[in-house]
Amino acid sequence: MDLKEHIYDLGRRAREASRLLAQLTSEQKNAGLLAMADELVASEAELLAANAKDLERAEANGLSKAMIDRLTLTPARIASMAEGIRQVAALPDPVGATITEWTRPNGIRISKVRVPIGVIGIIYESRPNVTSDAAVLCTKTGNATILRGGREAIESNRAIAAALSRGAKKAGLPEDAILLVNTTEREAVPIMAGMDQYIDMIVPRGGHALIEAVVSAARMPVIKHYHGICIVYVDREADLEMAEKIVINAKTQRPGVCNAMETLLLHRDIAEQFLATAGKALIAKGVELRGDERAQAILKAQGSPVTPAAEADWSTEFLDLILAVRVVDSVDEAIAHIEKYGSHHSDCIVTRNEATAERFLNEVDSATVYWNASTRFTDGGEFGFGAEIGISTDKLHARGPMALEELTTYKYKIRGEGQIRT
Amino acid sequence: MDLKEHIYDLGRRAREASRLLAQLTSEQKNAGLLAMADELVASEAELLAANAKDLERAEANGLSKAMIDRLTLTPARIASMAEGIRQVAALPDPVGATITEWTRPNGIRISKVRVPIGVIGIIYESRPNVTSDAAVLCTKTGNATILRGGREAIESNRAIAAALSRGAKKAGLPEDAILLVNTTEREAVPIMAGMDQYIDMIVPRGGHALIEAVVSAARMPVIKHYHGICIVYVDREADLEMAEKIVINAKTQRPGVCNAMETLLLHRDIAEQFLATAGKALIAKGVELRGDERAQAILKAQGSPVTPAAEADWSTEFLDLILAVRVVDSVDEAIAHIEKYGSHHSDCIVTRNEATAERFLNEVDSATVYWNASTRFTDGGEFGFGAEIGISTDKLHARGPMALEELTTYKYKIRGEGQIRT
Repeated sequence: MDLKEHIYDLGRRAREASRLLAQLTSEQKNAGLLAMADELVASEAELLAANAKDLERAEANGLSKAMIDRLTLTPARIASMAEGIRQVAALPDPVGATITEWTRPNGIRISKVRVPIGVIGIIYESRPNVTSDAAVLCTKTGNATILRGGREAIESNRAIAAALSRGAKKAGLPEDAILLVNTTEREAVPIMAGMDQYIDMIVPRGGHALIEAVVSAARMPVIKHYHGICIVYVDREADLEMAEKIVINAKTQRPGVCNAMETLLLHRDIAEQFLATAGKALIAKGVELRGDERAQAILKAQGSPVTPAAEADWSTEFLDLILAVRVVDSVDEAIAHIEKYGSHHSDCIVTRNEATAERFLNEVDSATVYWNASTRFTDGGEFGFGAEIGISTDKLHARGPMALEELTTYKYKIRGEGQIRT
Repeated sequence: MDLKEHIYDLGRRAREASRLLAQLTSEQKNAGLLAMADELVASEAELLAANAKDLERAEANGLSKAMIDRLTLTPARIASMAEGIRQVAALPDPVGATITEWTRPNGIRISKVRVPIGVIGIIYESRPNVTSDAAVLCTKTGNATILRGGREAIESNRAIAAALSRGAKKAGLPEDAILLVNTTEREAVPIMAGMDQYIDMIVPRGGHALIEAVVSAARMPVIKHYHGICIVYVDREADLEMAEKIVINAKTQRPGVCNAMETLLLHRDIAEQFLATAGKALIAKGVELRGDERAQAILKAQGSPVTPAAEADWSTEFLDLILAVRVVDSVDEAIAHIEKYGSHHSDCIVTRNEATAERFLNEVDSATVYWNASTRFTDGGEFGFGAEIGISTDKLHARGPMALEELTTYKYKIRGEGQIRT
């Protein structure tokens, strides 16, 4: 079977499975999820053996220690994947809920009800646990999934997908509910992205090249999970102690994630005072500061190390202990900077002035806009969603943390007694 | 200015206008809409002169009488466009509404609020009134619009867009809120569709070639307004008098629209009895029947004219007084037929049996699924939305009638007192 045939075959099978999945009760789906968790644990030896092959190849290819760590499965990590599945089983099922309903003057009753989307394609890189996390969220919401993981995790992904499918089948779920693109050829991505007769929505999670490959070929809706250039603005009326706590947290608590801060904007009236303490605290945490001219002047005068920020730094997702710092004259300038350089993911103002805060909340066109709280809260778990497929950087269908509800769509059921249009 | 420059210039200007539009109050936007309506009426002579040029070219090019009628502006049609704008001004503004809000255990307050999408591209054919209808719905919801109408209406569209912009400017709205692609070159469509840095959503309204041109080039979300192969299934337990009324209405009340019925499925147990009266009634209304073998046999025995349905007829949107008729053995066969041949727009079951109806409502994966009512109700006005941009045949973001709410997205505003993530 050639590559296109393989992928189209997956499409047909997923479409067929999606019709069955859409009609299952929550109880049936949850029983399937629990069986999948059990099967994953029961397949530990098989998963570790498959993972060992990936790790061997990774070492031969000279992958970084951090990447090898992300790729590694252990009994504890397998148990944690299974536990994640059990938690998803315990969450409420959004499918079948009535969103709104009303009766028209002519008596027809219109119900807008939540239904599965159908077939969801997920294209991702690196960590094999995404195979399980993404698949079970789709199963919970009655969607079939076609997964395309990174080449470096292909053996692990095959073993995980096979275990999940066995579990699903044991519990009476369609065997084709979870399908893996069983190849590492790059051409698989544009073929999937062009297959809109079988895939209703595609979710790329990864770097620029992956996102671009999907977006440029996609015929179906794409929900991008792209980068976060998150920006914190400390206003002239900020509580500077609070601002320091937020800035330290947003930058250093976990610098390698999309909701970490990458740029700090300081109102000129508080820049010197703020940097005198917070600047030193950031440096003590190992953060490299890159300043605009005014920030450089202040930091140098305070004896703090600083390098000049290049134009590219304002639109770079460092994912590291690096922070670009700019001094601005007003909240307007802060908002304009965010509009120009930010990625519309998570941005924050620290201020005591409610009117200034409300302006910022209204005018910054980002998925999540914060007043006096760390950008690190942009997360399905922190939002209380119980699980997440990721953080959408798109505006339509799903924006910000994307969880179970965002894996559904709606349809209108209309009940009448013979009404006709006149 | 070359074509690409022209369109990118529109993009930049629309993006700029969208930022201003998003911050306007409902009162400001409504004042703008009323001024636009007034300006349209005041520009009657200009509009009629522009339209005359389109009509002259249309006649020289030998356009059909029906197409020329759709293209024609009259003082009454201009007044009706203006009246449509005033009606939109009177509708509630969805922007700014809080969809949900909650407080997390750590005290952060999360509000999910409705906001404009930004810049909406609308690509359409034929009727010049779409220029006004689409633009004002976008203005009402705080979005900037880039319009690309059909070449046959270019003069009329230019005059309408210019009048709307003048009205907007008079009332203090951004002059670039409504922009028209000022060319008839086909290349404009792929250029618009590739311009995802400036256009947040694109809505194609038209035939297959137009939709395909947009979908194959689009980098941003596309909400297709495509065809309706609407199917009515008359069950063995149907009230046949009711079924006849619904079938006649769905087929003949306005056959040229997307929510008109194109295929009739009849349960074998009632097919003969139903066709004896409803078949004759359809024929009396001028409907040409195209039957499968069983339908042909019944109709011939009843002395009714019938031609054989070709395979392509089951997936054809006739938009005319033509009806494909098939006899099926069960509701399952009806559902399978709809899944295979339908366009997931609007489908209907006529039955007295609630369990059968609920199965149909659940299993037919269409935007609107009817039990005992005509498919002709799939319409923003009939749903009570007050206005519509069209009927989405897509599943994501907007499905079925697409009105003001579907021209918005959401963002999360998060208010804290210094919370950080631990």
